[in-house]
Amino acid sequence: MRRGYPAAMSDFRSPTDDIRLVLREISDIEGICDLPAFEHVDPDTIDGVLDELGRFVSEVVAPTNRIGDEQGCSVADGVVTVPDEFKKAWDQYVAAGWGAISQDPDYGGGGFPGAVQTVLTELLATANRAWSMGPMLTLGAVDALHTFADEGQKEVFLPRMVSAEWSGTMNLTEPQAGSDVGALTTKAVPRDDGTYRIFGSKIFITFGEHELAENIIQLVLARTPDSPPGTKGISLFIVPKFLVDDDGSLGERNDYMCLSVEHKLGLHASPTCVMSYGESGDGAVGYLVGEENQGMRYMFKMMNNARLGVGVEGLAVSERALQQAAAFAQERRQGRAVGAPAGEQSPIVDHADVRRMLLTMRAYTDAMRCLLYLNAATVDVARHHPDPDVCLAASERAELLTPISKAWCTDIGVEMASLGIQVHGGYGYIEETGAAQHLRDARISPIYEGTNGIQAMDLVGRKLPMRAGAVMGDLIAEIRAFDAVLAVAGDEFDSIRSNLADSVAALAEATQWLMANGLDNPNDALAGATPYLRMFGQVVGGWLLARLALGSRRRLDAGEAHFETGMLEGKIVAARFYAEQLLPIARAQLGAVTAGADDLFALAADGFSA
Amino acid sequence: MRRGYPAAMSDFRSPTDDIRLVLREISDIEGICDLPAFEHVDPDTIDGVLDELGRFVSEVVAPTNRIGDEQGCSVADGVVTVPDEFKKAWDQYVAAGWGAISQDPDYGGGGFPGAVQTVLTELLATANRAWSMGPMLTLGAVDALHTFADEGQKEVFLPRMVSAEWSGTMNLTEPQAGSDVGALTTKAVPRDDGTYRIFGSKIFITFGEHELAENIIQLVLARTPDSPPGTKGISLFIVPKFLVDDDGSLGERNDYMCLSVEHKLGLHASPTCVMSYGESGDGAVGYLVGEENQGMRYMFKMMNNARLGVGVEGLAVSERALQQAAAFAQERRQGRAVGAPAGEQSPIVDHADVRRMLLTMRAYTDAMRCLLYLNAATVDVARHHPDPDVCLAASERAELLTPISKAWCTDIGVEMASLGIQVHGGYGYIEETGAAQHLRDARISPIYEGTNGIQAMDLVGRKLPMRAGAVMGDLIAEIRAFDAVLAVAGDEFDSIRSNLADSVAALAEATQWLMANGLDNPNDALAGATPYLRMFGQVVGGWLLARLALGSRRRLDAGEAHFETGMLEGKIVAARFYAEQLLPIARAQLGAVTAGADDLFALAADGFSA
Repeated sequence: MRRGYPAAMSDFRSPTDDIRLVLREISDIEGICDLPAFEHVDPDTIDGVLDELGRFVSEVVAPTNRIGDEQGCSVADGVVTVPDEFKKAWDQYVAAGWGAISQDPDYGGGGFPGAVQTVLTELLATANRAWSMGPMLTLGAVDALHTFADEGQKEVFLPRMVSAEWSGTMNLTEPQAGSDVGALTTKAVPRDDGTYRIFGSKIFITFGEHELAENIIQLVLARTPDSPPGTKGISLFIVPKFLVDDDGSLGERNDYMCLSVEHKLGLHASPTCVMSYGESGDGAVGYLVGEENQGMRYMFKMMNNARLGVGVEGLAVSERALQQAAAFAQERRQGRAVGAPAGEQSPIVDHADVRRMLLTMRAYTDAMRCLLYLNAATVDVARHHPDPDVCLAASERAELLTPISKAWCTDIGVEMASLGIQVHGGYGYIEETGAAQHLRDARISPIYEGTNGIQAMDLVGRKLPMRAGAVMGDLIAEIRAFDAVLAVAGDEFDSIRSNLADSVAALAEATQWLMANGLDNPNDALAGATPYLRMFGQVVGGWLLARLALGSRRRLDAGEAHFETGMLEGKIVAARFYAEQLLPIARAQLGAVTAGADDLFALAADGFSA
Repeated sequence: MRRGYPAAMSDFRSPTDDIRLVLREISDIEGICDLPAFEHVDPDTIDGVLDELGRFVSEVVAPTNRIGDEQGCSVADGVVTVPDEFKKAWDQYVAAGWGAISQDPDYGGGGFPGAVQTVLTELLATANRAWSMGPMLTLGAVDALHTFADEGQKEVFLPRMVSAEWSGTMNLTEPQAGSDVGALTTKAVPRDDGTYRIFGSKIFITFGEHELAENIIQLVLARTPDSPPGTKGISLFIVPKFLVDDDGSLGERNDYMCLSVEHKLGLHASPTCVMSYGESGDGAVGYLVGEENQGMRYMFKMMNNARLGVGVEGLAVSERALQQAAAFAQERRQGRAVGAPAGEQSPIVDHADVRRMLLTMRAYTDAMRCLLYLNAATVDVARHHPDPDVCLAASERAELLTPISKAWCTDIGVEMASLGIQVHGGYGYIEETGAAQHLRDARISPIYEGTNGIQAMDLVGRKLPMRAGAVMGDLIAEIRAFDAVLAVAGDEFDSIRSNLADSVAALAEATQWLMANGLDNPNDALAGATPYLRMFGQVVGGWLLARLALGSRRRLDAGEAHFETGMLEGKIVAARFYAEQLLPIARAQLGAVTAGADDLFALAADGFSA
């Protein structure tokens, strides 16, 4: 440290109790544990798992965060180097079996609900955003293979991917095919033995190459000869780094290479690879997953899950930024707070404006966590409830919430990381403090896995029209019905009730406008999509925070010892602060949602800047 | 470039016409040219200067931007190295005399209005934010010496600082004294010859050391022996890097040293120095400016100007980010826009959501430019109008607007730079694209020269109470009176009129609440300060955009050839878009402004995070 500087306070603390409370009040974790698929699990077991997981990420993963940002990664002759500490953390992750926690027991998984995997996602990403990309991509690949691969493929690949001995990737993007996946040109040439040979280049491949795992299972989108153009001609292939022999041992190195890693704003230690398949000329050996030309359908089916995971990144970066800012604000002394004795500097946490920043971060962090764990629990119900009607309703609800989880949480994550810098004053701009890293790391999440603009288009174009608007209508009705609960909850919920009623009315009005105008003039709906998504997220956040606060009040009144009194009281404060001070942003979007596209298209394409 | 990537489009174009229009419609540049001090200047001369300045920054300064970010700066044995290109640009800046443009002709200045110096600030910062810090700090030091130094000091130092042969700095911050300047401990020991010896450490000193100029004139805040504690015991000193002999030639090297430069999120090529005065033990030779113990008063007097300059940085980074995003959006093709022919990819500028991002950037950039040039012109009137009553009113207005200029523009600057990244999709996250640099460079401006929280406290604590609220009342009355103008401006201004009326009503209500509650409960006013400032900025932006749009309509109707039709029409679109879609954020702050401090202080100091 340089002389006289305040210490960088980046110690990570697992927010285990916050998560527990949300699992109980928002995710109905008890109800999920009652589902037949989770008979072997109960909330107490989950509590124990959370404790252990909290210890693991605190002791093993979190200490690698700054090292990763400072050292970054590099490539030489196709070999990608990440900090040594990453390998040690990966080995311990494999040894502890954390990756298996919510996977299918048939392939070595622990069979816990998906909501518990969301805890894993959150805590790993909070501890080290860059490192966590490896396990997360692997879990995504496991999900894809588990759903769409044939039994033989599953037996070969899944057990060691579930354990994270082998890692997984997704190879979608090419230079001319980013958001526009259908424009990809990588080729897959069939061979007589039923395999394919893959030729082409991919970019932006997260953890596309590294030495952390024994093998890397690349999932690659490519076109077979004579396939239809666009998204209808894309197939999905397994392309392992090392071919797997019949006895399960690793064989020949496959014919692909990592050419370079990107120099990125953040996630310095997460290798983002330029991949070349068929670099030697023979082509990389690939195995078709499912049927030819169904690759995009498979990807779309998986995307809701992956997008939920990216939404969790927004929560994670916000939690970490808040922890660091809150610690700094207690330590750092500047100026004299109102009412403080003369002649001494107050901790900056005593200044009202610093408290505004911290409480804003606290409230949004809680709101994001509620939304994401509700979404995850809804997926659990959709997959495992014995009643097919309940499954369907849950599935629709999950699909509706997913673009909000992804886009709202990642936008807010960037805002909160930026606020975390502000709390630090000048020190926030110095890299050694560690606050700036959170903003740099956060900034990719609104972009990848479908930009937030694409999430908004998905919301108004695909999700609102579900059941002719009734899926959204049901949600609005549910939030409105909650008003009756708030009405009898006592004075302290009065302002929450009135602000929520006002904002849900705005959401209903905006929804009605989009349903009425979107079909005839798609650009009018698309023009309002992003402000609508922001409004939606803001309202759902307020609704869930109110539910969390009500539950906290109930626990306080019952004198329950399971949670700390201060934390429960804090949830009520955060909900009221959010309702009175942050929720009004929802109605402020109404003009933008309902303005139509005329002004957006009034300027010439080259008329936006000098 | 890597294969297949879209080219980084960071070509800078001087927004000269946008500036000209704002100078005419918002700054009343003709009225300013009529002031006696500016008899030698007219709008046509200024037009010519703007053309030449635009060429200079395009050809000389802008090409150094990426180089600076990539190479950064370093220090070895007290010598700070910046990219070679920076020295070439500095020499040309000196040769062309740009720094002198608005300075006192008695010391070699050009005597142009301050509004023209704002153009210089804008264009230099847009072209290369890091490099521009050197000239900007120099101009700040010139301003300080011109106002407070004695005639002898002025004669020695000013001519070569005005020319930028010598550069200038401000040495305020120490580790324990950031926002809390009064806590500084650097010592100034008087000597019999009337000079002082300075001992102590300073941090965060922008361009504190470099080889670009022949000499560096450090302005240092320090305490003389037995001075009162806190801000009342601080004096201001001139500490030149090389002492100046009686004949004006450079003499002995002074006793201070740059120990290190910070590793920052952005502004990589702007050396942020840790300085040690009296490193050899003898103390650095310093010359007292003005009177002892008056240093803080001097600093405060200067701050309005410096803060306006920092506000311009928010505009500048937004302009540059917009230029780059707009160029990318025309070039990059992804997906098929509504109505586009099947089978081909559309430029992304044809997608509604991309246009929303670009028009948001366009509208905020215009709004910031209007506010900043109004503020600058108001300072010109305050300084130079022959009628003392007009001077006083202008001075008060300028003081009221300054915290908005600083804080609102720099917050928006960060938001717009972030939006610029988003337009680029995945490429925005890659450093070579250049979009990420703008966010990194932008992030310091809300922090330094008084954090934006301190600006908000200044607004509600010092500026609102001016003339018992009448300074603010006059502004609100002026905006309200503008309604009568909009009422007869035709249908196309209807939605601007109604939205402006609604938001100014919210601003009036918020102001009234703060005036009524702030005196008794200062924390209640401080708690609402930041949302109030945001509301204020949002409303003033809407008012000024409406004025700009009205002026554009008038010019269009008159068939005036001075400005391009497309640009003028664009101003009307931007004003309407802003009024309907961005301005409602103003009213959404009302709950936060009027909530009081109770919830902020309901949590324990350590209760904000796990």
